[in-house]
Amino acid sequence: MKKLNHIFSSNYRIYYEDTDSEGIVYYANYLKFFERARSDFLRSKNIIQSQIADLTKMIFVVRKCQIEYILPARLDDLITTTIEVIEIRGPFIFMKQQILKDQKIISVLEINLTAISNETFKPVRIPLDLSRKILDQDSKIK
Amino acid sequence: MKKLNHIFSSNYRIYYEDTDSEGIVYYANYLKFFERARSDFLRSKNIIQSQIADLTKMIFVVRKCQIEYILPARLDDLITTTIEVIEIRGPFIFMKQQILKDQKIISVLEINLTAISNETFKPVRIPLDLSRKILDQDSKIK
Amino acid sequence: MKKLNHIFSSNYRIYYEDTDSEGIVYYANYLKFFERARSDFLRSKNIIQSQIADLTKMIFVVRKCQIEYILPARLDDLITTTIEVIEIRGPFIFMKQQILKDQKIISVLEINLTAISNETFKPVRIPLDLSRKILDQDSKIK
Amino acid sequence: MKKLNHIFSSNYRIYYEDTDSEGIVYYANYLKFFERARSDFLRSKNIIQSQIADLTKMIFVVRKCQIEYILPARLDDLITTTIEVIEIRGPFIFMKQQILKDQKIISVLEINLTAISNETFKPVRIPLDLSRKILDQDSKIK
Repeated sequence: MKKLNHIFSSNYRIYYEDTDSEGIVYYANYLKFFERARSDFLRSKNIIQSQIADLTKMIFVVRKCQIEYILPARLDDLITTTIEVIEIRGPFIFMKQQILKDQKIISVLEINLTAISNETFKPVRIPLDLSRKILDQDSKIK
Repeated sequence: MKKLNHIFSSNYRIYYEDTDSEGIVYYANYLKFFERARSDFLRSKNIIQSQIADLTKMIFVVRKCQIEYILPARLDDLITTTIEVIEIRGPFIFMKQQILKDQKIISVLEINLTAISNETFKPVRIPLDLSRKILDQDSKIK
Repeated sequence: MKKLNHIFSSNYRIYYEDTDSEGIVYYANYLKFFERARSDFLRSKNIIQSQIADLTKMIFVVRKCQIEYILPARLDDLITTTIEVIEIRGPFIFMKQQILKDQKIISVLEINLTAISNETFKPVRIPLDLSRKILDQDSKIK
Repeated sequence: MKKLNHIFSSNYRIYYEDTDSEGIVYYANYLKFFERARSDFLRSKNIIQSQIADLTKMIFVVRKCQIEYILPARLDDLITTTIEVIEIRGPFIFMKQQILKDQKIISVLEINLTAISNETFKPVRIPLDLSRKILDQDSKIK
């Protein structure tokens, strides 16, 4: 199932906790901002992960990701994190995300998430209504 | 120098990064929310910490704090963090902070920060105009 | 139940992840080192927290703590974290912990942990055999 | 300059701080373990990053990385992190790293680091003696 062209974005502030002694944001912490944006993206579609886990016994885990670090972020910066769903197929979601600062792209992420059972930890097919919600196709299909 | 009665507050979302395998926010991470609120409080008064460090060669470090954990916070919660400046005296700032969830206090912090030189790491008196700005006394005194 | 005079200690290295843009260890991260030492202390007595939770439905949460920051730690430092159990009473454990660098005390923690049910989240009395194990009194009492 | 076949490895414990409310290690935290191993690898060759920065005005930053998550790690697990230097070329270092648990590979990282000036933030050629030290070729070449 392919996405429509909507790109979601969310702003985050850089605090001391995000930086390291090189004076820039610590490389692992970019993954936190990317994950916040995914959570906020799902929340914007009324998909609350803590409820999903309880209701469907399904959680999303990261299978693979590729990050490019282009420019550093620093204390007090305000960054914008974008998210674009590329494809949903079986248990997999493919997304592309970016972090921008002053309208410049400072980091790019390609990520592959997998839906798994929170009991067996085996991959499970993402339910069609959830895929549609994620892909913004509610109105089209209903 | 004593504060007036203004209490600043700021909202933060709980993400996966904040939780631990007990299903609640990890105890050290409360200090991150408290620190974000202090940074946002200073920013609200146009005091940018990264600039302060460059301009005045002064940074604030924590000397002592006492935290009470009353109720847990969980994934997806929206928390409110408050900050009240109790007193500024020489190089010291004393603050009281709270975290609230659904209007209930879930954590309380009493904290003593010290201004130090970022070169000698010795305590330095907080400049009067900075104290006034922090204490909301600009209008009164000017 | 009062402790005997044993003090446990464990060494940890400071990595980039622990520091912030002030060039020193971020204040919340001291709580991580203190917690690691508590986990390693329990492990040294063959008390594995993930198993405790499964077996006894009991987890330990922090109720209150007081931290003093005396000297900063920096990238590449090797720190020693100590732990001394002061008292166990009903659902409560009281501990004192220190962080040392080059034989100097750089931080002191007083902490009060509470045993709670991981289902009801209500305080539960710490079982006597567990208290004894924690307090090093096995041999004396058996 | 190509590497010889030495693989460095280092063990780390999983603590509460590393896990999230899904009961497994949070995906960003794998990058912390990978980075600790790189620091410990350099330290094993007597290359101390905080000193390098002071002496050579050079720091290493991550330019790109690709992570595969194969199996989860959990609280109390003891993991082994390996590091293999693939190539050093100009300002770039290419490494391959793995995390193992019970002798099974649970995560794989391919990473490209770049040496930059800590003043201009421009890429700088890695000095030959440093490359040799990193690549274990001291004895061969001297």
